[in-house]
Amino acid sequence: MTTDCILAEYHVTASNRDVEALAKFIAWEQTVEVPETMILDADARERWVGRVDAVEALAGAPGRWRIRIAYPSHLASGQLAQVLNLLYGNISLCRGIRLADVVLPPAVTGALRGPRWGVAGLRALTGVHDRPLLATALKPRGRSAAEFAAMAAAFARGGGDIVKDDHNLVDADFEAFRERVLCILQAVEQANERSGRLTLYAPNLLAGGGELRRRLDFVAAAGVRAVLLCPNAVGFSVVEQVVADYPFVILAHPSLAGMALATEEHGMEAGLALGLFYRLAGADSVIFPNPGGRFDLGQEACGSVTRRLREPLGDIRPSLPAPAGGMSLERIADMAEVYGADSIFLIGSALLTYSADLEWSTAVFREEIVRCCGERLLPPASDAVAFGACEWKPTGGTKPSAFARHLGDFRWEGRPATDYKPDERLPFRGVSRVELVGRGGEATAFDLRYFEVEPGGYTSLEKHRHTHTVIGVRGKGILVADGERREIGPHDIAYIDSLQVHQLRNESTEPFGFYCIVDHFRDRPTEP
Amino acid sequence: MTTDCILAEYHVTASNRDVEALAKFIAWEQTVEVPETMILDADARERWVGRVDAVEALAGAPGRWRIRIAYPSHLASGQLAQVLNLLYGNISLCRGIRLADVVLPPAVTGALRGPRWGVAGLRALTGVHDRPLLATALKPRGRSAAEFAAMAAAFARGGGDIVKDDHNLVDADFEAFRERVLCILQAVEQANERSGRLTLYAPNLLAGGGELRRRLDFVAAAGVRAVLLCPNAVGFSVVEQVVADYPFVILAHPSLAGMALATEEHGMEAGLALGLFYRLAGADSVIFPNPGGRFDLGQEACGSVTRRLREPLGDIRPSLPAPAGGMSLERIADMAEVYGADSIFLIGSALLTYSADLEWSTAVFREEIVRCCGERLLPPASDAVAFGACEWKPTGGTKPSAFARHLGDFRWEGRPATDYKPDERLPFRGVSRVELVGRGGEATAFDLRYFEVEPGGYTSLEKHRHTHTVIGVRGKGILVADGERREIGPHDIAYIDSLQVHQLRNESTEPFGFYCIVDHFRDRPTEP
Repeated sequence: MTTDCILAEYHVTASNRDVEALAKFIAWEQTVEVPETMILDADARERWVGRVDAVEALAGAPGRWRIRIAYPSHLASGQLAQVLNLLYGNISLCRGIRLADVVLPPAVTGALRGPRWGVAGLRALTGVHDRPLLATALKPRGRSAAEFAAMAAAFARGGGDIVKDDHNLVDADFEAFRERVLCILQAVEQANERSGRLTLYAPNLLAGGGELRRRLDFVAAAGVRAVLLCPNAVGFSVVEQVVADYPFVILAHPSLAGMALATEEHGMEAGLALGLFYRLAGADSVIFPNPGGRFDLGQEACGSVTRRLREPLGDIRPSLPAPAGGMSLERIADMAEVYGADSIFLIGSALLTYSADLEWSTAVFREEIVRCCGERLLPPASDAVAFGACEWKPTGGTKPSAFARHLGDFRWEGRPATDYKPDERLPFRGVSRVELVGRGGEATAFDLRYFEVEPGGYTSLEKHRHTHTVIGVRGKGILVADGERREIGPHDIAYIDSLQVHQLRNESTEPFGFYCIVDHFRDRPTEP
Repeated sequence: MTTDCILAEYHVTASNRDVEALAKFIAWEQTVEVPETMILDADARERWVGRVDAVEALAGAPGRWRIRIAYPSHLASGQLAQVLNLLYGNISLCRGIRLADVVLPPAVTGALRGPRWGVAGLRALTGVHDRPLLATALKPRGRSAAEFAAMAAAFARGGGDIVKDDHNLVDADFEAFRERVLCILQAVEQANERSGRLTLYAPNLLAGGGELRRRLDFVAAAGVRAVLLCPNAVGFSVVEQVVADYPFVILAHPSLAGMALATEEHGMEAGLALGLFYRLAGADSVIFPNPGGRFDLGQEACGSVTRRLREPLGDIRPSLPAPAGGMSLERIADMAEVYGADSIFLIGSALLTYSADLEWSTAVFREEIVRCCGERLLPPASDAVAFGACEWKPTGGTKPSAFARHLGDFRWEGRPATDYKPDERLPFRGVSRVELVGRGGEATAFDLRYFEVEPGGYTSLEKHRHTHTVIGVRGKGILVADGERREIGPHDIAYIDSLQVHQLRNESTEPFGFYCIVDHFRDRPTEP
C-alpha cells in the first residue's frame, strides 16, 4: 500500500486532546472535504480518503506534533497542481500546520516531466563539465539595452557561462522587450563566435495572458536558449507549460516564494518549496539566497534545497542549485566545497562591482572557480542541441496585405518565390517556396505556403513533431510517409502526422505544386 | 508624483535603530537590487528606485512599524506578475515584513484587464438580479460521473445558480475529465431547458502544461460557461491567460493562498491576497472561508476581501465575494445582511446533507435567499451572451485519416459535404461545407474546410475576432470585406482580418468554391 501512496509529514501545533482529531481533519479535508457521514463504505474510504499513519510528539517542541498521512497516489491525477493542492491546498488556510516532508511514489513522479535539460543537459549546452557554472544578473533596471548588451558581452568574453536578466528587469512593453533582448542576445552571440564558448543568455519572462505567450514565441524564434521564470509569480502551471512547449533551459527565481517560509509553524519546508516542487515544475536550476547575503534562509534550508534538487526522483532529471548573494571571490573555495561541481554560482553585485572592467572581473572569478574545481571543456552533446532552435524567425510588426492575386502559373502578386531552405543541412533538389499567409504579420495560428518541385526534384527527407497538411495544386507528385508511397494530384488532401519520416517527390515530367499548411510555431525538422 | 506611484504599506518588525535602514533596504531591493553606489544619479534614483515616504511606529504593537513606500508606477510594466514581484517578490524571503496595504494608480489598473464578466456580467448570464447567487460544490471525489450529473441536475431543478466541481475533484486523465464534464453539463443543460433558468456548471481546471490547454479547449468547445481555477496552485498568469483567451466566468478558489496569511507579521493582508490580486488576475468571483466554518480567517479579513473585490478600481470590473463554509439555512438572513446582494453563497456540505432530496433542499435554501433579499428575474443582456460559445464542437478521440483523395468535382473520399451552419441565426443561401483537416483528430492549430456557393448564393454577413485565410478554388466569387468588394478566382489568396465584416458571394452562373483556413480555437461569429 505504501508504495502506492504519497507520504506527507506535517508538523502541527495542537493540544494533547485535539491532535488526533486534527490529523483526521487534515486527511479528510485534503481529499474528500465532506463530513464522515457522507462516506460510510470502507472501500471508498480506503480509495478516496487520506489515511493517518502516525501522530507523534515532536521532540524538543512542546505542543508541536508530527502527523504522517498517506494519500492514495491516484489522487494526484498525474498533475503537479493537484499534488500541491492535495498536500497543502485548503489546510494552508489553517494556522499552525506545516508541510515538513513529502515522499512521492513512482506513480506520481512517472506522470510528471520535470526539467527538460537537467544537470547533464545544461552541461552539454554550455560545454562546461566538472566545475560550477558562473552566472550573473543584468541590473540595475534603468540602463539602456546597449548598456546591458555591453555588460553581457563583457561577461561572455570573460568566460562567464550564464547571463540572466535581473528578475526585476521588466520592460515597458513588448517592443522594448524585443529590442532589448535582441540587442543583448546578439552581443552574447558575437562574443561566443569569437571565443568558441557557449555563454547562455536568459531573458526574464515576467508577464501574463497573451503577452507571456507572445514573448515566449519571440524569444524562441530569436534563438534564445534559456529563460528566467518566477514560479511563484507566474505559477507552476506556466512553468510546466513552458517546459512542454518550448526547448528552453529554465532558471527559476524564488520571488514571492518566501510566503511559504515565513515561520517554522506554517508553510513548507524550504527543500519542498524551492527544491522538490520547483524541480517537478521543470526548473533546470533554482536560484536561492546563499547564507551571508542580503537574505538568509539558513545553511540547513539551503542544504535541503540542494539535496532535493539532486536526489533520485524516479526518472525526473536532477537540477542545479544556484546559490546567490553573499558570494565574494574569497568565498568561492568554500562555496565549491559546500555545493560541489553540479551548481551554478550566481554572482551579481559582487561581480559587477569587483572592478570597472567586467570582462576582467569575470575572468578572475571564473579562474578561481576553475582553480577550485578543475575543468574539462567538451563539445556539446549532439542530442542536446537538436532541440535548440525553431524553423521560423520573427516577422516584425508589418501590416499584413489582405490579398495576393494569382498572376497565373502559380505566381502571386506581392509574394515572391524564395529558396526552399537556404540554411538547411538536409539534402533536397529543385524546390521553390512561396510564403502566402502567416509570415507577413497575419493573426493566424498557421502558415500557408506554396511549394513547387521540378521534374526529378524532391523535398528533404525529414521528420518533426509538427504535422503537415498538404493540398495538391498542379501536376502529380509522390508523398512518401514512413516508407509508404502515395500519388498526390490537384485537390488531393494529405495529412502528415507528427514524427512521420516524409518527403515529396516529383517523378513526372511536369512541375508538381502543392499548398502546405503548418502550425505557425513549430519545431525544426531533423534527419530521419 | 503620488498619482504616478504605486503606494505600498508594509508592517515590519525592527528595532528603533534598524527601522530606517530596513525601509531603505525594501525600497532598493524591490526595484534595482544593487548597492547604492551603483546608482549615483539623482534623476535615475527618482525614476527607478522606490521612495520611502513614511516610517512610523505601529500603535499598540511594540517593535512593529509602518513603512510606506512609493514605487514609480512604470516599474509595474503593466503586468500583474510584476506588480506582485515589485510589491513583495524578494522581501517575501525576509521574516517580519508584511504587505499591509496597496493603492494602485490608474496607470497600473488601466493596463490590466481584470474580470471579463464581473458582477453585472454574471448577473446577466444567470438572469439573477438583486439577490445573492446560490452555489454548491460537487463532492466527494469518488462518485461516478452519473452520480455527479444527478446531483447537478437536482441542484439546477431546485433553482440553484452555480454548481461547481469541488477543487479536489480532479479526474484520472483527460478522457475521464471529458466524460464526466459532458455528463454533468448535459444534465444541467437539460434541467435548464425545462426550467427556463440558467444554472451554470463550472468544472475544475487543475492541470499544467499542455493538459491545461487541452481541457480549456475542450470545455470551451463543449459550451461550458464557467470554470473553477485555483490561482495559487496554477498561477496568476494562467488565470490572466484564461481570461484573455476564453470567454469563461472565472470562479477562484483559495487553495494554497493561506501561505500568504500565516501570521500577522508576514505575508499579505487578506484583502490583498484574496481580494485585490485575485480580482486583478481576472476572478469574477472569489471563494473564501466564511467565519464559523472549518476555516476561519476572521470577520475582519472576510470584510476586507469583500471590500477589495467591490471597491472602485479604475475600469476593472467588481467581482463577487463567495463566502463558503459555516453557512446553514438559519444563517442566510445574517449572511445576506453581512455580504449584501452582490454575493455568491457557496453552500456545500450543509446543502448536500440538508435532506435526502437535493432538489428540495436547494429549493428551500433558494427560497430563503429570495425571502431575505427579493429577486427580479430578467432575461440575460444580449451583449453578455455574445461571448458565450464557440463555433466548433469537440471531435472525440478518432484517429485522423491521412489522405482524402479528390474524387473530382470537388468531392473528397471520406469527407462528406455538410450543411453550412445548421444552427446559425445569421442568414445565408446555397452554401455547402466540407471539413477536410482539423476536425478529425488531426494535431493542427487550424482547420481546413472547402466551401461551395451556388450561383446567387452567399455566406452569412458576419464578423468575429478570428481571421480567415481564403484560397479560391473554382469559379469566381466576390469577397466583401468592410464594404469593399473584390473578385476571387482560383488560387487567389485572401486574408480577412479580425473583426472585419465580411461575406463571400457568388454572382456568377457557375459554382464558386474556396478553401478556408481558420484557427482551430476561435470565437463565434456575430452580426455586423
